[in-house]
Amino acid sequence: MPVIRVEMFRRTQEQKRDLARELTEAFVRTCGGNKDAIKILITEVDKTNWASGGVITAEKQN
Amino acid sequence: MPVIRVEMFRRTQEQKRDLARELTEAFVRTCGGNKDAIKILITEVDKTNWASGGVITAEKQN
Amino acid sequence: MPVIRVEMFRRTQEQKRDLARELTEAFVRTCGGNKDAIKILITEVDKTNWASGGVITAEKQN
Amino acid sequence: MPVIRVEMFRRTQEQKRDLARELTEAFVRTCGGNKDAIKILITEVDKTNWASGGVITAEKQN
Amino acid sequence: MPVIRVEMFRRTQEQKRDLARELTEAFVRTCGGNKDAIKILITEVDKTNWASGGVITAEKQN
Amino acid sequence: MPVIRVEMFRRTQEQKRDLARELTEAFVRTCGGNKDAIKILITEVDKTNWASGGVITAEKQN
Repeated sequence: MPVIRVEMFRRTQEQKRDLARELTEAFVRTCGGNKDAIKILITEVDKTNWASGGVITAEKQN
Repeated sequence: MPVIRVEMFRRTQEQKRDLARELTEAFVRTCGGNKDAIKILITEVDKTNWASGGVITAEKQN
Repeated sequence: MPVIRVEMFRRTQEQKRDLARELTEAFVRTCGGNKDAIKILITEVDKTNWASGGVITAEKQN
Repeated sequence: MPVIRVEMFRRTQEQKRDLARELTEAFVRTCGGNKDAIKILITEVDKTNWASGGVITAEKQN
Repeated sequence: MPVIRVEMFRRTQEQKRDLARELTEAFVRTCGGNKDAIKILITEVDKTNWASGGVITAEKQN
Repeated sequence: MPVIRVEMFRRTQEQKRDLARELTEAFVRTCGGNKDAIKILITEVDKTNWASGGVITAEKQN
């Protein structure tokens, strides 16, 4: 505890490394606690599996 | 808000497109709110990773 | 399978009843399968526990 | 997208406000994207509903 | 890692204590690993927020 | 209901089969209910997508 889960589109491994470090630091800074107890799970979502406004992201035209 | 997440076995992209559209419409019809605020996340699950009654679906015999 | 989970702000029991029925029908219509196998889990979220743009919803001014 | 969900023990509203702001800033800093698209959902968990090592936290003696 | 989450109707604290212990033991027995690394999160769901077959459980007649 | 979800690193199919059976039995033993109603969803997580203490597991040195 705590567990932080991030659902996002694909990122590079370097971005994920930086994200994990900075989310952990943000948690400790604002809520306290032991840094080692903070778990982060990243789920990378395909644009074919995410929709907003009823439209799949991969099929949006803009 | 709201976020609707669907965990299901694999479907075609056309089915996912129709599902996202119809779930969104069903939400607006029954609960109101702004269609664009509705987010849908589809997770397709392998039959090797889902069990009911203690038996993995991919290993069921029927 | 499938499991549909909805995270939303509080609604009346009548709205939740209608939502469950219509999401289930939308799933069967677009993806097929057995209506009885469709499970829906509604999570009602306090506005103090949801943020967008870095601001908790309950504290937004508009 | 993205959606960041935090499961943690109870915190004050001020801590949750700071957490939402800082997690959002950490995401933008490391992964880019539009700050307004970042959604955060906080779930506060009772110590009677969380276990590690097979023991419910509320019942741990130390 | 691993994280085991259980969504179920309300149970007594004694049942949750036994459940956490036995799920943890079942994991170690079948998948190995360090017992202390196993985290369990129990979510108790109201029957007004769960549906199957399109009908909210609290409203089912049987 | 209930739904048990397990997030863990990759395991063999035999381990997942045993895990599903034993988690289901553990639930019935401690909380009762109908075995067939118990659903289990396994999510296998890459070590590049899981962090503790702010460090991605795949990048830890030990």
